[in-house]
Amino acid sequence: MFLSKLDSLKEASSKIEQHQKIMSSEVVSLGEAHKRVLAEGIKSFHDSPPFDKSAMDGFAVRAEDTFGASKSAPKTFKIVDSIGAGVASNKTIGPNEAIVIATGSPIPEGANAVIMKEYTETVGDEVILSSQVTPGENVSPKAEDIKKGSVILSPKTFIRYQELGLIASAGYSEVEVYKKPRVKIIITGNELVDPTKEELGPAQIINSNQYSISAMVHDSGAVAEVGRAHDTFDEVKEAILKATEEYDVVITTGGTAISKGDVVLDVIDEIGDMLLHGVSIRPGKAFGCGVVNDTMVFAFSGQPVAAMGQFDMFARRYLFRMQGRDFEFDIVKKESELKIPSQLGRTDFIRTYSDESHARHILNRGSGVIRSMVDANSYIIIDENDEGYQKGDMVDVVFFDSMIW
Amino acid sequence: MFLSKLDSLKEASSKIEQHQKIMSSEVVSLGEAHKRVLAEGIKSFHDSPPFDKSAMDGFAVRAEDTFGASKSAPKTFKIVDSIGAGVASNKTIGPNEAIVIATGSPIPEGANAVIMKEYTETVGDEVILSSQVTPGENVSPKAEDIKKGSVILSPKTFIRYQELGLIASAGYSEVEVYKKPRVKIIITGNELVDPTKEELGPAQIINSNQYSISAMVHDSGAVAEVGRAHDTFDEVKEAILKATEEYDVVITTGGTAISKGDVVLDVIDEIGDMLLHGVSIRPGKAFGCGVVNDTMVFAFSGQPVAAMGQFDMFARRYLFRMQGRDFEFDIVKKESELKIPSQLGRTDFIRTYSDESHARHILNRGSGVIRSMVDANSYIIIDENDEGYQKGDMVDVVFFDSMIW
Repeated sequence: MFLSKLDSLKEASSKIEQHQKIMSSEVVSLGEAHKRVLAEGIKSFHDSPPFDKSAMDGFAVRAEDTFGASKSAPKTFKIVDSIGAGVASNKTIGPNEAIVIATGSPIPEGANAVIMKEYTETVGDEVILSSQVTPGENVSPKAEDIKKGSVILSPKTFIRYQELGLIASAGYSEVEVYKKPRVKIIITGNELVDPTKEELGPAQIINSNQYSISAMVHDSGAVAEVGRAHDTFDEVKEAILKATEEYDVVITTGGTAISKGDVVLDVIDEIGDMLLHGVSIRPGKAFGCGVVNDTMVFAFSGQPVAAMGQFDMFARRYLFRMQGRDFEFDIVKKESELKIPSQLGRTDFIRTYSDESHARHILNRGSGVIRSMVDANSYIIIDENDEGYQKGDMVDVVFFDSMIW
Repeated sequence: MFLSKLDSLKEASSKIEQHQKIMSSEVVSLGEAHKRVLAEGIKSFHDSPPFDKSAMDGFAVRAEDTFGASKSAPKTFKIVDSIGAGVASNKTIGPNEAIVIATGSPIPEGANAVIMKEYTETVGDEVILSSQVTPGENVSPKAEDIKKGSVILSPKTFIRYQELGLIASAGYSEVEVYKKPRVKIIITGNELVDPTKEELGPAQIINSNQYSISAMVHDSGAVAEVGRAHDTFDEVKEAILKATEEYDVVITTGGTAISKGDVVLDVIDEIGDMLLHGVSIRPGKAFGCGVVNDTMVFAFSGQPVAAMGQFDMFARRYLFRMQGRDFEFDIVKKESELKIPSQLGRTDFIRTYSDESHARHILNRGSGVIRSMVDANSYIIIDENDEGYQKGDMVDVVFFDSMIW
């Protein structure tokens, strides 16, 4: 199929989308819920704050009694109680009475404002106010943040540090989230060796994909484990079969270069359903995928940069969506500093260094050249309907950072 | 000191910077080096690729012999060898000879180009070419990516997935990185209880800071552990002393509201050097910090949103720099959808929802209102020299995502 017609990026994405799977959920303690995705809605069990709360250290008073107080015309109040954090007063404040109050403590009965300590001077059991306060001043009203019983977060919410705080305030010590997909990365390629400082044998190449693709899986909220297989049909078949039984997603690298003659794609075709092979994108044309044992198998190129691009185009979105999170490229417009040729009918993802206003693509674009990815912080994306851009044209840019889980 | 004069954001930052500490380094396996920071320079032990490498599956040939070949005028070559991945041929190619070659294999002696399988047809031991190739076509030249002996990454480089691939290619299976700071978070406040769905006692508040601040520490590349202390001088003193002996940074929450009368600041003042107390920022004015046992102690407000803001203003940068990484706000300009009042002499960090072009700040800005942080994805920053903005003004925006490790 690679030879007859390449899928467009859109066609390929749509085929994959039809086989999108969603992870089941699990309950984790709140301390482990950071950067997970809610699989349940969060309803608050409490008002927050649970009572009218002092927002300052100072004196709880009746605001009306302070009206007119100033540096030149201070007013004197009687201190009738003193409450620290975590304590409520059982006194009720009367006219010209004050209660010492700490930040976070409940406003006592009768009071409706807090005057900050800065504007007071304590003399024995009296306090002298050199400023007035308005009703409600320095008071965080009950339920200002959250109303008891209200739904405060919906399912599929991504839990940042602030959602974590909100969920805690609502009363949850544990929470239901989507499970993290477990991804098996199968590295094929007889020529590959682990990193070594020793001289390499003839034809040997260091296997860098195991590190970079694992890290990309991690950057997609998932968990990666790496295995190896030699380029024989039986070894690759056994590795893929076993992986599809034990993992949620399988990624292979290598052996996708040209046609169904390649071992990896032959295996997928024999033991599962091939979805596609060959996509009209650059880099990354030599991409295939299929479903084996009801499990998505992404077959990436062995070329490092092509594999990274294929991850960004296909696997990242799939892994995000498995966890209930959508993923679209966050495209921003930049002015291209260079001319960029492209080809109608092909989508290009061009390694680029972009700053606040400009994009300058990296000129050395060999699909094996990792250096070009290191020098880049973004892609310029050239749609299949565009033939490229002139210097000075506004182009579509996606920052790598914006794709991170 | 809080009462007499507040530090400006700049003054406070500068005081903290003077006590910036840098973590020592450690050697970790490459599989654990993702999102760490290099403490050594990386010099390549290999050329990459280590030889002239085929970028395609096809036939290695002498480009000159193919000149003129086309669909209508195909040329026939003799196949003299066949090499798979990880294998080198010991044959030398002569005129009109071809060697079957796999992606990644070394170009055989005599050959200078690869013709893709697509443009060929094999008949017995001959191959018919329906296209010509230019010298170097489909060949990734030796050392194209990395030159043996060259320095390819400098110390303090942040290791993304692509740097990980490059370091592997250079021959490293382990790498020297800055240690992760270990941060002890001490939650003070007698009124605080762990999240519960049961009715709260009078004056009790759920402790959400332990979760959100831990997550922020994690978002700064560091490791967090949480402890509790009651609001007594001795208990806080013991907790801080112990933490400064065992951890790289200490963060407290609570007890910073107004003056040195607060327990946390009193403790820091007694057992260490207070650097500052009270900063002219909003939210987060009630911030203090000091050095105890040669260890930075950040004293945050107990108010959740104030504590988050204080983290972003002070602790985040400190933790990044400890690990060899600089941190500056990545400011972008957006059009404000609302009028924003501010005060000369105070720096405001206003919770905001920003999209591609506009910023709309959240109106409910109480410093305890976590909801406002949940609704926000960015801050509008109003410099101390500005008195606020009118609707339609361009304002400085920092996205939360841009601050993540």
